[in-house]
Formats: sequence, C-alpha cells, structure tokens
Amino acid sequence: MSDKTTIGVGMVGYAFMGRVHSQAWRNVGAFFDLPLAPRMGVLAGRSKERTSAAAAQMGWADVETDWRELIRRDDVQIVDICTPGDSHADIAIAALEAGKHVICEKPLANTVAEAEAMVRAAASAPGRTMVAFNYRRVPAIALARRYVEEGRLGEIRHVRAQYLQDWIVDPDFPLVWRLQKDKAGSGALGDIGAHIIDTAQFVTGQHVVGVSALTETFVRERPLAADSAGLAATGGAATGPVTVDDAALFIGRMSGGALASFEATRFATGRKNALRIEINGSRGSLAFDFEAMNELWVSEGGGGFTRILVTEPDHPYVGAWWPPGHGLGYEHTFTHEIKDFLEAVAQGSDPTPSFADGLRVQRVLAAVEQSAADASRYTLVED
Amino acid sequence: MSDKTTIGVGMVGYAFMGRVHSQAWRNVGAFFDLPLAPRMGVLAGRSKERTSAAAAQMGWADVETDWRELIRRDDVQIVDICTPGDSHADIAIAALEAGKHVICEKPLANTVAEAEAMVRAAASAPGRTMVAFNYRRVPAIALARRYVEEGRLGEIRHVRAQYLQDWIVDPDFPLVWRLQKDKAGSGALGDIGAHIIDTAQFVTGQHVVGVSALTETFVRERPLAADSAGLAATGGAATGPVTVDDAALFIGRMSGGALASFEATRFATGRKNALRIEINGSRGSLAFDFEAMNELWVSEGGGGFTRILVTEPDHPYVGAWWPPGHGLGYEHTFTHEIKDFLEAVAQGSDPTPSFADGLRVQRVLAAVEQSAADASRYTLVED
Amino acid sequence: MSDKTTIGVGMVGYAFMGRVHSQAWRNVGAFFDLPLAPRMGVLAGRSKERTSAAAAQMGWADVETDWRELIRRDDVQIVDICTPGDSHADIAIAALEAGKHVICEKPLANTVAEAEAMVRAAASAPGRTMVAFNYRRVPAIALARRYVEEGRLGEIRHVRAQYLQDWIVDPDFPLVWRLQKDKAGSGALGDIGAHIIDTAQFVTGQHVVGVSALTETFVRERPLAADSAGLAATGGAATGPVTVDDAALFIGRMSGGALASFEATRFATGRKNALRIEINGSRGSLAFDFEAMNELWVSEGGGGFTRILVTEPDHPYVGAWWPPGHGLGYEHTFTHEIKDFLEAVAQGSDPTPSFADGLRVQRVLAAVEQSAADASRYTLVED
Amino acid sequence: MSDKTTIGVGMVGYAFMGRVHSQAWRNVGAFFDLPLAPRMGVLAGRSKERTSAAAAQMGWADVETDWRELIRRDDVQIVDICTPGDSHADIAIAALEAGKHVICEKPLANTVAEAEAMVRAAASAPGRTMVAFNYRRVPAIALARRYVEEGRLGEIRHVRAQYLQDWIVDPDFPLVWRLQKDKAGSGALGDIGAHIIDTAQFVTGQHVVGVSALTETFVRERPLAADSAGLAATGGAATGPVTVDDAALFIGRMSGGALASFEATRFATGRKNALRIEINGSRGSLAFDFEAMNELWVSEGGGGFTRILVTEPDHPYVGAWWPPGHGLGYEHTFTHEIKDFLEAVAQGSDPTPSFADGLRVQRVLAAVEQSAADASRYTLVED
Repeated sequence: MSDKTTIGVGMVGYAFMGRVHSQAWRNVGAFFDLPLAPRMGVLAGRSKERTSAAAAQMGWADVETDWRELIRRDDVQIVDICTPGDSHADIAIAALEAGKHVICEKPLANTVAEAEAMVRAAASAPGRTMVAFNYRRVPAIALARRYVEEGRLGEIRHVRAQYLQDWIVDPDFPLVWRLQKDKAGSGALGDIGAHIIDTAQFVTGQHVVGVSALTETFVRERPLAADSAGLAATGGAATGPVTVDDAALFIGRMSGGALASFEATRFATGRKNALRIEINGSRGSLAFDFEAMNELWVSEGGGGFTRILVTEPDHPYVGAWWPPGHGLGYEHTFTHEIKDFLEAVAQGSDPTPSFADGLRVQRVLAAVEQSAADASRYTLVED
Repeated sequence: MSDKTTIGVGMVGYAFMGRVHSQAWRNVGAFFDLPLAPRMGVLAGRSKERTSAAAAQMGWADVETDWRELIRRDDVQIVDICTPGDSHADIAIAALEAGKHVICEKPLANTVAEAEAMVRAAASAPGRTMVAFNYRRVPAIALARRYVEEGRLGEIRHVRAQYLQDWIVDPDFPLVWRLQKDKAGSGALGDIGAHIIDTAQFVTGQHVVGVSALTETFVRERPLAADSAGLAATGGAATGPVTVDDAALFIGRMSGGALASFEATRFATGRKNALRIEINGSRGSLAFDFEAMNELWVSEGGGGFTRILVTEPDHPYVGAWWPPGHGLGYEHTFTHEIKDFLEAVAQGSDPTPSFADGLRVQRVLAAVEQSAADASRYTLVED
Repeated sequence: MSDKTTIGVGMVGYAFMGRVHSQAWRNVGAFFDLPLAPRMGVLAGRSKERTSAAAAQMGWADVETDWRELIRRDDVQIVDICTPGDSHADIAIAALEAGKHVICEKPLANTVAEAEAMVRAAASAPGRTMVAFNYRRVPAIALARRYVEEGRLGEIRHVRAQYLQDWIVDPDFPLVWRLQKDKAGSGALGDIGAHIIDTAQFVTGQHVVGVSALTETFVRERPLAADSAGLAATGGAATGPVTVDDAALFIGRMSGGALASFEATRFATGRKNALRIEINGSRGSLAFDFEAMNELWVSEGGGGFTRILVTEPDHPYVGAWWPPGHGLGYEHTFTHEIKDFLEAVAQGSDPTPSFADGLRVQRVLAAVEQSAADASRYTLVED
Repeated sequence: MSDKTTIGVGMVGYAFMGRVHSQAWRNVGAFFDLPLAPRMGVLAGRSKERTSAAAAQMGWADVETDWRELIRRDDVQIVDICTPGDSHADIAIAALEAGKHVICEKPLANTVAEAEAMVRAAASAPGRTMVAFNYRRVPAIALARRYVEEGRLGEIRHVRAQYLQDWIVDPDFPLVWRLQKDKAGSGALGDIGAHIIDTAQFVTGQHVVGVSALTETFVRERPLAADSAGLAATGGAATGPVTVDDAALFIGRMSGGALASFEATRFATGRKNALRIEINGSRGSLAFDFEAMNELWVSEGGGGFTRILVTEPDHPYVGAWWPPGHGLGYEHTFTHEIKDFLEAVAQGSDPTPSFADGLRVQRVLAAVEQSAADASRYTLVED
C-alpha cells in the first residue's frame, strides 16, 4: 500500500454520519485495491475537546474547530461533509472553490436554490462531487440495478418504495435538530424520503416526473432537547413546535411510464429501518427490505420470488469481503461508497450520484412539498 | 338440523363467484350452529344446459334461465347475486321489491347512482342486504379488527393497503368481461381496489375522506375472448380496446386522521393474490398478506412483529374448524360470510357490510376516478 | 352427476378425523370429475344419540352403533376407519373379509403384527386399501414429489423432517387417549412421526433402512380426562401415567444413500402443526412447512430458495379449485385423498399409500422404538 | 485513547480467519471503550512476500516467517492463532509457555489428546486463553443466551441445531486442506459442527452428555488443489481421496434433560451459511438462522414467534454501533470476541469460551466419531 499516492481527507462533523464515514475511510483500503490511499487527516467540529476525543477514537490525525480552516489546509484534498443540511451548501461551495473534491451527506441541501448553487459551483470547479446516498451501495440494491439494466424485469410498470422508521412515535421524544425545519429542511421527507427517491431512480434508471402528495405532523409539540438553546432559556420544562413533517406519502409517474408510490415515515411502530422497494416489470419483479439487507427477492417468468442471499463473489462489492452466506452490515454501504468515490476521483470522472443527481432528488422533494401544501389537489369523498 | 327453520336460497350466476358461494352454502351448516337451515334451491343462468350442469355439480336443486323467475319463486327467500357488476342493481332492486333478502357480490354496483338506488331500495324493503366483501371474514382480518377495536394499536397513524395480482401481464391475455367498462364498471380499481378500501375501513373503523389518485392502462388493446360476440364477427383475429384501468394508486386520509395509501394492480408480476394491509398506530402495528392468509403479524410496544398463526380456538370463526395449526383456505371466508348473513337475517338486524356500507366504498371509487382524471391535481417535477 | 355409479360409504368414528373425512366425502364431487359418486350412507359410533347428532350435522344418511353392523350392510361398499389405532386391525380385517374397500386412518396399526395381519387380509380380499397419510395430498408436497421424480434435485443427500406441535406442553393437559399406549400404540412417534416418515419416503421415493433413536416423556403423570372411566371412579382429582413418548428423535439412512433426521414432538412450544421437510440433492433442494401449506420453497442450481405459491392450475390437485393465490386449507388434503381413493377403486388398482405402504412405516416406527430402548446404542461423552 | 496501556498482538496465519481477525483488531477500539489498546504488531506466515503483502493490506506493523519468532518477541503479549487445526496445539502451548495470552481459532485441536495438552498448558501458565467460537458473539445469539438465563423459556426440552453449507456440492471442487484429515482433523463435523455444539451449549447453559451419530462422505475423490504438492508431482490431472466427513448428524441429550439434534453438512445445496438453532422450553422458544443474523425469533406463552431485530441499544454489543434497524455483519462477531478477550485479559479472568470449554466441545466431536464408526449402534429396519 505504501507505494500508492496518498490523498488527504478532511471530515466535517462527527455524529452518527461522521462515525460511519470514519469507519469507511479506515477500512476501505484493507478490502479494495484502491487507486489512491486515503489519509484520515483532519476532523472539524466546533468543540475542541469533543472533536479531539472523536478524532482519537475514530482515527483522525488532527482536528480543526472551524471548517474553513479545514478547507484551507494543503494536506486536505477531499472534504467529507457530515453536518446537518443547513450547512451543506456553504461548506461544499467553499470546498469546491478551494479546489477540493467533495462528498456530502444527503439530502444535498435544504432547498432547491441551495442545491442549484452547489451544482453550479461543482460545474466550474476541478473537484469531483458526490452526494452520499449510501443505500445505492447495498450489494442487494446494486444487484437489483444490474437486473433492471440487463432487462431481466422487462418494461417497468410499478415502483413501490417505503422508508419506515418509528424512532419518534413517543411524544416525549425531544425536539432534536432533525425535527426543526431551519436545520433539517424537512422531516421524514428529506431525511429518509430522499433515500427512497434516489434508490427508486437508481434501480429503475428512470426519474420521477410528477407527484401527488400528502404530508403530516402527528406530534406537533415536543420537549426541547437537553442541549438546545431554548431549553436553557426556559428552565428545562419547555416544549417547542415540530416544524417538519413526520410522514410524507406521494404517488407519481416515472420517466419510463411506471407508476410509483413512496412513503417516508418516522411513525411506523415496530419498523426500525425498513427501506423497502418493490419493482414490477413485464418480465419479472424484485423486492428488497433493508431490515434484511443481505437479501434480494427476485421473481422471473411470473413464478415465485427467489430469496437471493447477496453474498456471492460475483455480486456487486461482495467479492472483496467474506465467503457466501457471511453477510455484511450497514456500515459496509459507506465503505463501498468511499471506494467508488476514490476510484472516480482517480479516474477524473464524476462519481454517481453527483451533486447534479442530488439536485434531481431535491426537485422531487420540492414538488412533494408543493403538492402537499395545495389542498385543491386533493379530492374529497362525497358523504 | 331437521328441526331448524329452512330458508330457501336462489343464486344468480355460477362462474368463479357462484362456485365459491355454492361451496359456502353447502358446508356452512356442518360447522356452524345456524339459526336457519339454508336450502340450496335454485340456480339461475342464461343457458339451460350449462346452468343445469353447474347446479348438478354444485348441489342446487333446481334451475331457472331468467333471474326474474328466480325472484318470483316462493321457495326463494334469499337471493345471492354472483353476476358481473352491470346487473347488480337490476337484480338486487327487483329482489328487494319482491321482499327477498339479498347478498350481492362486490363492488356493489358499477356507479354511485346505481349503488344509491340499491341503498334506497333496501331502505324501503323488509329484506336484509349484504355486499360480499369476503376478505373481512378472513380470520386474520377479523382478528386485526378486534385488536384495533380493543385499542391495542392506539391511535391509528398509517394505513398501507395493496392488492397485487399479475394475471393479465401477458399482452395476449384476452379481453374478458372484467376488462370492459360497460360490464365491470372499472378494472383493478373496482375489482380488487374495492376490497382493500373495505378492508382498510373495516379494520380501522374509519372511512376514507379524501384521495389523490393515479390510474393507468398498460396494455390498451387485447385479443377478443373466444366467446365474445365481437370475435365471431371478425373471424377470430380481432382485438378490442381495454376500457378499464389496469392499475390504480391513491393516497388519502382516513376519518380518524390516519394517512393511507392504496394500490390495486393486475400487473404485479409474481404476485398472485397479495391483498396486503399494514396499519401503524401509536401503540402497535399489524400486517397481513392474503398469500399467507392464516398469519397475522402484530407488533406491540415498539417491539418486533409476532407471526400469529390465526388458527386458535379463540380466534374469530376458527373454533368451528380444526385444531391449531391446521389452516383454512380462501373458500372459508365465504362460509363465514354466509354464516354471518344468516345470523343477521334470523335476528332481523343488518349484516355488515350492508348495501349502505357498499355505497360508501363506491363513493371512494368515484373520488379516485375523479382525481385520476384531473391532470391539474398532479404536480410536475421541475426539470 | 346423476348418471354416475353411486358407491356407498360407511364411516366409523366421528371425532376430529371423522369430521374432516366427512367434509371430504361431502365436497369431493363438486370439484373433481369422479368415476364413482360417493353416497354418505352410514356413520357408526357407540352412542346412538351422539352418533345421530354427528350424522345430522355432517350429512350421513343413517347411523349404526356397532361397526360390525355397518360392515354387514349391503349399501356400504367403502369402510372409512376414523377410530383410535387399537381398533384399526379388527375393523379393517372384518371389512376386507366382507368384501369392502377400506380407507384407514394412520398409523395403520398399533403394532407391526397387527399391520402385517391387515396387509395379509388385504392381499386375499377383493377390496382396495389405503392408509390415510393425508399430507401426501398437500399440493406442495405432491409438487415436491414431482420435482424429485423429474430429477430436478439430482441425487438426494439429505432429508430433514420434523413434526412440531405444542398442544401438551401444559402439564395440566389431561390424559386423553392419544397419551395412552393401549389405545394409541405410541405417542408423538406414531401420531405425527408416522406422517413425516411417510412424507419423506413419498417425496424421495426411497425408504428408511436404518435408524438411531431417542425418545422421551417429559410429563409422566397427567390429570385424567373428564370423560375417562378412571376419573369418575376417583372423584375427578386423580392423575394417571402417560404411557407413550412425548417426543421422538431419530437419524438414519434412506435406501438411496441419503442421510435423514426426523423429529416428532408435542413439546415444541409455539409450533402448532409444523410438519416440515427439507431435502437437499446434488442439483437442488426443497423445503416445506405445513404452517404455510400453500408454499413450497425450491432451490435450483445452487441459487436461493424460491417461494412457489402452489396455487397454479398445473400444480397437483389445484386446477380443480380456485385461481392462483387463492389458497387451500387443511381439509382439502383429505378431499384429494378421497378423490385418489375413488379413482383407484374405480380403476381396480391399489391406491397409494396402500396397507402395504403403511406396514413399511410401521416397521420404521418399530425400529425407532427398539433403538430408543437400547441404551447400549448410545455413546456417552467423556467428562 | 492515548493514555491507555497498549498491548501487542501477533497473529499467525492470514487467510480467511486472519483477515477477519485483523478487521476486528483494527476496529474494536473505535467502538468499544477498551481497558487495553491493542497494537497490531506482527503477522506471521511462511512466505515473506505474501505475508508482507497481507500485513500491509491488513495493517500489521511487522512480519515474521516463523511463528516461533513471533512468540519470542517482547512486543507481543497476545498470540492470535488463525492456522489450520494441525498446528494449534504446537503454537498455543509454545505461546503459553512463553507467557503469552492466546486466542485460538476453532476447533481447539484436531484430537482430544491435543486439546487436553493445551488445557494443561493453559492451567500452568499465566496467560489467558480463548477459543474463537465467534458465533457466541452474534448479538442475537447472545440475546438468546440472556433469555434462557433469565428463565423466559422455562425448562429446556428441545435443541435443534444445524449448520448447513453447500460449498463442496460440486464434485470438481478441489481437495483443499479442509478436506484432509491430517490438516483439518475432521470435515463438516469439526469445522462447522463444532460451532453448533458450542452454540447449543452456550445458549442452553447445558452440555451434551451423550450422542448417537452418523457421518458420510458423499464425494470421496476430488481434484488436487492448484497449490498442493501432489498436484505439481502429477502434472495437474490427479485426484486425491477426501479423508474427512462431508456431513455429520447426531442426536443426543443435554445435561439438563433436553433432547438435541445436530447436523453439520457442506452438501445442503442452496444453504450458504445457515447456522440455525431452535430451542423449545416449557414456557417459550427461540429460533435463529445466521443467514438472517440480525434477527432472533422468540415465542413466549405459547404464542407465535416474534421477529426481534437485534439492533436495539440494550441488546448485547449493539449499543456500541448504529441506530436500531441498521444491522451488523459477520465480521462484527469477531470484533465482539476481541473486545471480550481484551476485557478478560485486563481483568485477569478467564474469557469464555476458554481452552477448557473448547476441550468440552472436542470431547463431543470424539463421541460423535466413535458412535458413527460403530455399526452395532445402528438399528436396521426390518424389510
């Protein structure tokens, strides 16, 4: 590995996404024969103390307390953005202008306007961009894409995508940043709805062309989170308004003529991380549920569904890992993402999904919000 | 059984639905202690020869070739309508006016106007009415209703209902009556979409108050069926237009505030009769798929889903049958329906779903069609 | 149907097996084009009152209180034996000697000697014999047999058969006849173990050639049943010894070289009627669980397992019933059995499994008991 | 992390097991708050070139080409043995005598005698020992153990354990070391049968006290492997005898009275790594299949089985990783193992399973072989 060109990585943010990205940077080289050897150079966070502790635990060599400093450093060629959506555009545009490659957590931005600015910045910069829709790199999802691409499903007629979670069913769950519009942009829609839009578009090779939507906020007031500014001000007893959707449903059409339905919710009691997609074509179908992420179910010729354990050497990404039947976990989707990103950077090509692909998802999110906000688009049942 | 009051039954139609209704009439008394002993009196069909053969095979004592004659008979107190939707209103109204009890296949009618006329006829007649939404009588579905009624799921937030079939994926499948609007009223929407609307309304105890919908006909021209009039006229080579939907998707709200999504399609390759419903409440969830009809999946307290084999003596309808683990089949849902119908008739109460309940489903179907037909209710994704 | 030759049926016993056999006799003609029209002539039971009530409910025209009288009747050509195992030999041999055809519940007898006498009686009588291993007539099991026969699994290497129930886990469950050796012959072994032996032999086309076995009685004393003679004598508080096995395990070899494992138990808490079989061959595998009786899981070419919904018109027995995806239940296995029995009787051929096939199962049961009784066949682990 | 005591690790072997152990050593500190900071010091292998390449890829600082040198080094306090079974005893005993802690791949040895020598060496040495039965550290298996320990299953009556693979079904698969008795000790029995013995003993807290067994070698001659000495000598066309079992079946009793069945095979076509265990107790049951490793199925109170997604913060090991529903993979079982090993070393206690526990498994393997070899323990079915 020592004779490979090293490329310096700087990461902004060290919460959930930062931890799993770190795991990917740390391990990718042990399993994939990479064109570039990533060096876990710098971690940026606001608190010196906490950032240092995170860096020590996750293996980052140095820290910065201002992401602008991280971008300025010569030993950083790649900027990995793991912050909430409200800072994506600022960091990404600055990094691109500084000539860095950028990988950014999803959704790309909190608004279409921000996403467009990011795409413009990418277009005029030398750096490569990627938006981190990691579920594309689940081997089963990548295999699903391969099947569709090979025509094994025929003409696609139906897409049925759901992302079901239940982590805020309890009305006493606090008002974390993901429930605040100014930080997160939207709720279930942008956080997990974005994933199923991207997954559906990726697997089918089509994009969503129109939608009808409904959104809902079931619990409209929640206790302030322990570390929120508001909480301190009010003595700890206060609540605040949930300013994002708890759930978003929409139906629509894909560019190739398929009918599609989407549902993203954090109120599906008993479902923990059920990113599900089923696709029906004229010749076959496939179904996937991330809660059983090593399985892809495929029906061909009108027959029953076959449970494919996606752990064979010829399945996407799998050859690098363990023997058949020895499954992978959530984190490996990020390892695969980093591998593909590094390969694209080395080749001077655009990784997928690029910022431009992320913008396309952003536009679907915007259309969903527009549809859901317009009551005239809804038909009452006569009583 | 000999000391029970006998009640005469006349059935109109002997195709798929007629066969399964006959099976129910023949067996219901051997398993349930009925207040009335049904006598399989008369079967009506247009062809004397075919009707007689069907009657002999299925156990009907006599035949008529005109349903009006069947209604006129004094030995017929119950009229069971198993014909396509275009004749439901005529037969049912005539039967009601003749003082008969009526059980009618679903959907209740081909239009809201017809269904309203049927409900009016029922309101001014002594006979009891029932619309044959048999899936309510799947023990697992009846158990699901019991769970919701007992509050075990808490406040209902999500309904996710699908009815997936694939029997017309082949473009060479002929233009049978179910694909003709004048006979069937609509396609997947009325045939199987009606079932999931009724099931969702039954299980939740709520009704659909508004929708946004999309429908599609994927294969618009098909070979004429062997026995169709058109075929004879054209020498067998002709095709005709499919005048109903192949698939219908809609999202909406339930009267209690839940978000709901519905999908009915005959193009879900590999899915044979997947009537599925998942309901998420504030305290628990349940899931069902008719392809595994003896199972109900229930999650309580945020935990995993439990696969309940709905074959215990205390489960709805099950005590009459076999020991635990010895499952029932499709036909038993009709046996249960007939049992409930006879009990209601004997008690002089209205069975559920009555014609009035059937009208409510019809109005949802109409709203779906109205929404799907209006392009202005659809939001394009900016490109 | 009126022009078909009628054949008179007399049934002995009207408990669980009697009820399900009645259901089969009542319905078989409505679905299958039979060579003979069965007439539900006579039901025999000890109590005149209870037998008459059962006959009325289940549709038998007449009753007898002595099975010898039933056999003597000229209007009875088929004797259907639904009694506990201790009376099988007496009834069957008498019926055969009287020139009747006999269908007998499983296991064929309580001992090899009895079974041999039955086979001898069958050999010298004109009547046809069948032992009612109904699970062979589950469409999925019949399809499994077809696959093996066609060579799709290649050379069979493994058979893994289990029959798991839990209905006597509660130590307060009473000492019913199935827990008494003099009536039942053995416990789980003969009652449900016999089924998996027959099923394994049927599907593979091989027979069990040798075994090593363990049996156990977990609860050795139980309350006497409410209707048992002993209970009345003791004032209701007494218990009695369980004289049969609660569970039986054995491993062995099949005649074609496969390794096989079998387990029959009534103590598998949470398993209700899990008759399971998995077979692995050099080219493919299959798996079945009666708790999902409409499904057969098949793996070919080393790939994943396909869930075949065994409801297609070309699947065994299925064409007579409902459209794809509209599943069958437990009772239909008996309907299929009666259909095959009547066809064999009409053709003058031996139905399968005949008494001779039943004897083969009986011999495996005897070998299991012999092995389990001999501690020297068991190897202690050094401590 | 910098202020923790560092402990040097030396690993022998860098094939499949070496790769996954390396992954565990590399990552354990990023997720668990360890008492000792492991340093990936030295990797030993016979070929300098290949060992160096492996060390570079997997992150080992230095290499040795003789394991004796590795043991001699002062910067190595832990020796991790990832070689075939024939060298376990030599390496482990030497390491123990040199005062090292030892973690050794399973099965502990190729014979009981070797295992006994290892246990004796451990008893008189200061180092701690562990045998790497990694499946104990699947969170679902650890949760299963917790349930049994808490008494939620009541008295254990049945253990049903299988380890099903299919990687040598093809008769052209070469004669690798795992198929040679001198290197591997036994075949499926020691390789994967050892895992299910350990898992069953761990989860139940009981040990196997006696067995009846059958073993088989289905394919007795195979092509020599490309890198085998024999192959070179014969010009590549030669085959050699398979000297181990392809499959092993046994039934037995556990020390607490449960009946148990075990099956280990490499000929279960379509099963890739199906380590399965089902346990039935007087109050509940549980079931697990490694092919869906993040799920544990639990039945309580005689009800249905609940699919527990073992990804909750309070499940064993899981709190260190990702949010609910974001599953783990095969490799994480090793990470957990290393974590537990390091904690035990730091506390000066014996990790489980220690070499003594490994010996207990070895004795079961020996009893199985003894039983299988003795035809008099097998009962022929009378014909």
